[in-house]
Amino acid sequence: MRKETFLTKEKAEEIAAQFPTPFHVYDEKGIRDNLTAIKKAFAWNKGFREYFAVKANPNPFLIRIMKEYGCGCDCSSYTELMLAERLSLPGEAIMFSSNDTPAEEYAYALKLGAVINLDDLTHIDFLEKICGAEGFPKTISCRFNPGGLFEMSNGIMDNPGDSKYGMTKDQLFEAFRILKTKGVEHFGIHAFLASNTVTNEYYPKLAGILFSLAKDISETLNVHISFINLSGGVGIAYQPGQEANDILEIGKGVEEQYRSILEPAGMGDVAIYTEMGRFVTGPYGALVTRAIHEKHIYKEYIGCDACAVNLMRPAMYGAYHHITVLGKENAPCDHVYDVTGSLCENNDKFAIDRSLPEIGIGDLLYIHDAGAHGYAMGYNYNGKLKCAEILLKQDGSFEMIRRAETPADYFATFDCFPEFKDLG
Amino acid sequence: MRKETFLTKEKAEEIAAQFPTPFHVYDEKGIRDNLTAIKKAFAWNKGFREYFAVKANPNPFLIRIMKEYGCGCDCSSYTELMLAERLSLPGEAIMFSSNDTPAEEYAYALKLGAVINLDDLTHIDFLEKICGAEGFPKTISCRFNPGGLFEMSNGIMDNPGDSKYGMTKDQLFEAFRILKTKGVEHFGIHAFLASNTVTNEYYPKLAGILFSLAKDISETLNVHISFINLSGGVGIAYQPGQEANDILEIGKGVEEQYRSILEPAGMGDVAIYTEMGRFVTGPYGALVTRAIHEKHIYKEYIGCDACAVNLMRPAMYGAYHHITVLGKENAPCDHVYDVTGSLCENNDKFAIDRSLPEIGIGDLLYIHDAGAHGYAMGYNYNGKLKCAEILLKQDGSFEMIRRAETPADYFATFDCFPEFKDLG
Repeated sequence: MRKETFLTKEKAEEIAAQFPTPFHVYDEKGIRDNLTAIKKAFAWNKGFREYFAVKANPNPFLIRIMKEYGCGCDCSSYTELMLAERLSLPGEAIMFSSNDTPAEEYAYALKLGAVINLDDLTHIDFLEKICGAEGFPKTISCRFNPGGLFEMSNGIMDNPGDSKYGMTKDQLFEAFRILKTKGVEHFGIHAFLASNTVTNEYYPKLAGILFSLAKDISETLNVHISFINLSGGVGIAYQPGQEANDILEIGKGVEEQYRSILEPAGMGDVAIYTEMGRFVTGPYGALVTRAIHEKHIYKEYIGCDACAVNLMRPAMYGAYHHITVLGKENAPCDHVYDVTGSLCENNDKFAIDRSLPEIGIGDLLYIHDAGAHGYAMGYNYNGKLKCAEILLKQDGSFEMIRRAETPADYFATFDCFPEFKDLG
Repeated sequence: MRKETFLTKEKAEEIAAQFPTPFHVYDEKGIRDNLTAIKKAFAWNKGFREYFAVKANPNPFLIRIMKEYGCGCDCSSYTELMLAERLSLPGEAIMFSSNDTPAEEYAYALKLGAVINLDDLTHIDFLEKICGAEGFPKTISCRFNPGGLFEMSNGIMDNPGDSKYGMTKDQLFEAFRILKTKGVEHFGIHAFLASNTVTNEYYPKLAGILFSLAKDISETLNVHISFINLSGGVGIAYQPGQEANDILEIGKGVEEQYRSILEPAGMGDVAIYTEMGRFVTGPYGALVTRAIHEKHIYKEYIGCDACAVNLMRPAMYGAYHHITVLGKENAPCDHVYDVTGSLCENNDKFAIDRSLPEIGIGDLLYIHDAGAHGYAMGYNYNGKLKCAEILLKQDGSFEMIRRAETPADYFATFDCFPEFKDLG
């Protein structure tokens, strides 16, 4: 089945003439249209804010675009906080959703006035020591983990009980009780129950759980719930033919829960936050690579000039990423290939037993849905270098938004040794 | 069951006082003793050389130690070739074993006079174009893939037929025939049939297959087989109680095959090469990390200051790495923990349901067998930075052999953009 590309063969070759393959390329128009849709989907909620999950794609040029649409950043580490600071995001637009958090990262988040999302009950004491004389910030969020299984009507389920994140319900109440005595005035609730869901049902179902919980907490503890953070989990359709999430439907589903649970409880001022990453950039990024070898042994192989260094999801998770051979969009998929990278690692395969048109040496392969957790998850195994990132602009022009790595980058951590200083 | 550490709690704290946790630490004595054993195991073979698989641990300080023992480098990429060049290795001590190889990497290998190990029949034409007027080097190796299953007497098997590497037997003959007409005079045969084997049987069994094949090729095509490269695959005992490979036994087993197959065929001049990585450094490296959080929800968690960025094998393969709580080597393992890192990624767990002594905040965890494919496979997911590498010297002193990454390293690929130049 076919899956559309945002790039023609001609445009890809035009880019490749300037920036050698492989490269990541992002579709500015796709990202902007998607951000517009997200904003629209939650326009019914006055305080709505999407905090882009920086881990999905930590490129400041892309995040700057999101900022135009009112997005903040969901940061999980020191360098992600640095990115948010460098983009001049105000504290309230920075959500620090972390787990197993080092003290210096909390300290930095406090300095930026970021909203801290506590992963665990024990982090209250830990954070208090860091806050010192200034005391807790007035706004704090806590992360909820309901345990057990989370099942959706399509039978797909995830297992929050096996995940390391969040607090139990009792702990959440306990945390809010303690935090209230510490002077916290505005509370948030956060939960992440399922990853990469492709159903419009997930967010509304999660919202229903969290709204009821918020009402319960608010009534029991007499605390002010300022926001509810639905976190991520809204997925994308990696497979061709898979029906993509409809963010307008999702927003409507959350609104229904809001109107039926929160508003009647007098909690119509609660802001809805999201921390989508994959859904924001995933489909609007592609990894473009050139076929450089073909191999005929016990199977048919196409070797390309990208490898798991550029996109690790197939190697790590066995994840499916659709491949379009540019210029052969309408050719019959009558060949079966393993599409490989060059790592000395047999899991370095972008596709296994994939039906594709006949691929010739020099053909450009467009690997879909690499816009999230693509570049971001890259490693340098086998000493391979990460490639450049290109932004395809709305007017059809393009520009580099991250340069490719060089050997000097790869050897940078030897620059303090006179004997190996010149490596690279 | 207990597994020995090469570091006491006191020494680890002494290192940590100077180089904050987490850090990788290597045992110089262990590495040297092991290299001595490897040399001894194959001393019966005049031309023997271990080409250390750089991908396992691309640290020049460690490779320089190996060079003292006559080791060369097995390189699989441009930067790995750079490392070999920078260590002044002569061409014959550089094996370029790559697959899906880019043209510029072959060109560089040719420039260095490295021994090229061709992965595929189609690479002959590909390489010939790069060789240009100078023609093929006089020495070339070809990689063999027998297909089917490779089974050992313990029932463990691997599936070369599903792996992307090497040539079929027919192709190998065809390759040698062609290469001979191109003026190649010295031939090598290489094969990698199973990964991380923990049995003394693997190398001898593989040797038997390759020696018979070499004899067959030599007789049929009248070519001079100069060396046989047993590649890697000799594993280490990650699990406690698992019996480790005995390299002297392995060497003896290969010798028996050599004496019974090659010598009677008048091929007593064939050099044996190996490309071990894991076996050379794996057990002599540890990741030392400090427990910074404990968490009690549906399971018991210990959060430490290392994460999959420092050691990805558990996240990627579900691999077992033994953990010793330093200073509690003899305490009863009466607690069950998940030991986690801080990534927003639920596979970021060094151990799941692991029986360990009670762990207190501040305890140092020694994660075993991180000396190969540890630092080397690190990524920067969630913007986390890689840690330093420390060499524990034979006299008990220690020195840094790779500095920790800084935010400036992480943001280096934005240094060409005036607007983000100052990031980091």
